[in-house]
Amino acid sequence: MSLVPHNPQAGQVHIGLGDRSYDIRIATGLMSNADAWLGLPKAAAALIVTNETVAPLYLAQLQAALQPHYAKVHVCTLPDGEAYKTWESLQLIFDVLLGQACDRKTVLFALGGGVVGDITGFAAACYMRGVPFVQVPTTLLAQVDSSVGGKTAINHPLGKNMVGAFYQPERVLCDLSSLNTLPPRELSAGLAEVIKYGPIADMAFLDWIEQHLSDLLARDPQALAHAVQRSCEIKAWVVGQDEREGGIRAILNFGHTFGHAIEAGLGFGVWLHGEAVGCGMVMAAHLSQRLGLVDAAFTQRLTALISRAGLPIVGPDLGAQAYLHHMRVDKKAEAGDIRFVLIDKPGSAVVRGAPDALVAEVIQACCR
Amino acid sequence: MSLVPHNPQAGQVHIGLGDRSYDIRIATGLMSNADAWLGLPKAAAALIVTNETVAPLYLAQLQAALQPHYAKVHVCTLPDGEAYKTWESLQLIFDVLLGQACDRKTVLFALGGGVVGDITGFAAACYMRGVPFVQVPTTLLAQVDSSVGGKTAINHPLGKNMVGAFYQPERVLCDLSSLNTLPPRELSAGLAEVIKYGPIADMAFLDWIEQHLSDLLARDPQALAHAVQRSCEIKAWVVGQDEREGGIRAILNFGHTFGHAIEAGLGFGVWLHGEAVGCGMVMAAHLSQRLGLVDAAFTQRLTALISRAGLPIVGPDLGAQAYLHHMRVDKKAEAGDIRFVLIDKPGSAVVRGAPDALVAEVIQACCR
Repeated sequence: MSLVPHNPQAGQVHIGLGDRSYDIRIATGLMSNADAWLGLPKAAAALIVTNETVAPLYLAQLQAALQPHYAKVHVCTLPDGEAYKTWESLQLIFDVLLGQACDRKTVLFALGGGVVGDITGFAAACYMRGVPFVQVPTTLLAQVDSSVGGKTAINHPLGKNMVGAFYQPERVLCDLSSLNTLPPRELSAGLAEVIKYGPIADMAFLDWIEQHLSDLLARDPQALAHAVQRSCEIKAWVVGQDEREGGIRAILNFGHTFGHAIEAGLGFGVWLHGEAVGCGMVMAAHLSQRLGLVDAAFTQRLTALISRAGLPIVGPDLGAQAYLHHMRVDKKAEAGDIRFVLIDKPGSAVVRGAPDALVAEVIQACCR
Repeated sequence: MSLVPHNPQAGQVHIGLGDRSYDIRIATGLMSNADAWLGLPKAAAALIVTNETVAPLYLAQLQAALQPHYAKVHVCTLPDGEAYKTWESLQLIFDVLLGQACDRKTVLFALGGGVVGDITGFAAACYMRGVPFVQVPTTLLAQVDSSVGGKTAINHPLGKNMVGAFYQPERVLCDLSSLNTLPPRELSAGLAEVIKYGPIADMAFLDWIEQHLSDLLARDPQALAHAVQRSCEIKAWVVGQDEREGGIRAILNFGHTFGHAIEAGLGFGVWLHGEAVGCGMVMAAHLSQRLGLVDAAFTQRLTALISRAGLPIVGPDLGAQAYLHHMRVDKKAEAGDIRFVLIDKPGSAVVRGAPDALVAEVIQACCR
C-alpha cells in the first residue's frame, strides 16, 4: 500500500504548506465554470501570460472568466517553446506589467504548458519582489507535474532552469478539456510524468496505469481525471514534506538525471522533456537493477509500460563521457558528484551516487 | 523613549526572522578578523561579487579571509554605479557561477555598496532557486540600510528595483574601517538613512545624531560604531515585525517617495539615493506639517540637521505634475494612489495618502 492518502472527493487536491497552502482543482470545463475563479486575491488588474499556440484555443475563454473579477485584464503572448524560456521572454512580461502601471497586487495567470507556467511563476516571484499568480495548465505534463509545487525558472545559455525561485501559486486549475487539443506526442510526454509516480511512491497506481493506458491514450475523461488527481496527490504529499528540495522532494526527479543529459546532449527541444524523462526512467531502472536494488522483471515491466505510452526507451548515442559530463553539471550534483534517483524497491525511491563505471555500462546498454 | 531595544553588547545586532534569522556584526577591522568568518555555510566554492572601485581597496583582504574556508574563491567584478544594477550585470554573475560549475551550496559574498548588495542578493535568490549569501557592505548607506532586511533587486528600464526578491543573507559584516575610503559625498548620503531612523522611531537617537554630527563627519570610529549599531537595531526591530512589507516596514521609506521622484525625474544617478532621501525627508516633513501632524519647529529642526549633514534640502524644479507622476508609478502606490510615509508625531511614522493639491503646495514650497 502507498503511504500517500487518496482524497475520495474527486477533483480537489490540497497542498499543505502553511501560509503558502493552496488547492489544485481538476475537472472538465473548469475554465468556463464561474465558481473556479471565486476567492482569488482581489486586485485592480490581472495579466494572462500565454503562448502563440495556446492563445487561439483558450485565451478568449480565460479572459471572459476573469473579466467579472478584475477591472483590467492584460495579456502577454510569448512565442511557443523551450527555446523561449529565457530572460528575454521574462522581460516581455515585465514590459507589459510596467507599461500598464500594474501595481504589486496584480494577479498573474499562466495559461499554457510547463514553459509558460515556469516563466510566469518566476515573473510573479520577482515583479516588485512578489505578486500572486495562478496556474492554468493546458498540457498533461503541466497538470501532473510542473504547475504543482512552486518550482519556477528560466533557462540560462549554460543550463536549464538555472535561474529561478521556489514560489507557490494561489491555485492550480486543471481543465481536463484542454487536453483534447494536445498533440499526441505531448500527451505521451505527459504520461511519462504520470508513470513516474508509480515506481517512486505507489505501485497500486502503476497497476492502475497499466490497466487504463489505452483509455488514457484515447483521452477518456474519467481516466484522465484519476491520473491527474492521483499524480497531484503524490506530488502534494512529497512537496508538503520538503518544499525546497532539501531531501525527499528529489525523488520527483526519477528519470530526470539521465533525461537531463539527453536533453542537454541533443540540444534542448529536440526531445520533449517528457520523452527524455521516459527514457531516463528506463536507464535509472537499469542502474537500480545493476546495483541490486530491483530485479530484471521490474525493469522490464516499467520499460514495457513506457514504450506502450508512446515514449522512447532507447537513449541517443552521445557516448558515456558526454552523459557523465551533462549529469555532473546538473543542479542536483554536489561538488561534481552525480546524485541519482533510484528505485530501492518498487514503490520507493532513494537518492544516491553510483560508480562511474556502472553508469557507463548502463549508458552502453540503453543507448544506440 | 523609543520602543526599540538597545543591545548593550556593542557590535552585534540580531535580526529575528525564525529560520531566516541572522546577525549583523559591526566593528573596525572586521574583514581581517578570522572569527568574523567562522560558522558560515560550508561549501566547495565561494563567489565574491564586487565592483571596479571597491575591488582595488578590499578584494585581496576578503579573498585572504575566505581562502581558509572554501577550496575555491571565485570573483566577479562589476562596473560601478546604479546604471549597472541591471539584468546584464546579473547575467555576468550567473556566467561566472555556471562557467565555474558552482553547485547550489556555493556561498556568494557581496563586497561593496547598495548596488552590489542588492544585485548579489538577487543573484543568490535566483541561482539554482537559491544559494546562501553574505553581505559585506563597504558604504555607510549599505551598512545602515540596504544590506539589512533582505530586500534585493535590479532595476528595469521603466522603474527602479522593480525586479527582485525578499531574500535574507546568512550574515552582515560591517567593517567600519571601510568607511575611511568613502568619498565625502557618499558619507553624507549614508547619513541621510541614519538620520531617517530618528523621526520614524527614536527621537533620543535624533538628539544623539545632532550632538555627534561633527564626529560622524570626521569619521570618528566610536561615533560611527554607535550610528551603525543603533540604525541596524531600529531596522531589525521593524523588519522583524514585517519581513515582506505588508505593513509597518513601509515606515523605513520615510523620505523615499519624494526622493524616488527626484531620482526618477533627474535620471537615476544624478543625485545619490541618500541625497534624494535627505531632500525627500524635508518634503515629507513639510507635508506632515501641512496636514497638522507636526509643528513648524520639528520641520525646521530636521531640515537643519539634514543640511548640516551635507545633504540637499531644496528639491529640483521638475514641476508638480512630474513629481506626482513619478510617485504614482512607485512600487508603494496602490492602483495609482500615492502612499506617503509621514511623521504623525516626532518619533512615530504613519503611512497614508494626501490630497494632490496639498502635495503640489509642498513641491512648490520645497523645490526651485
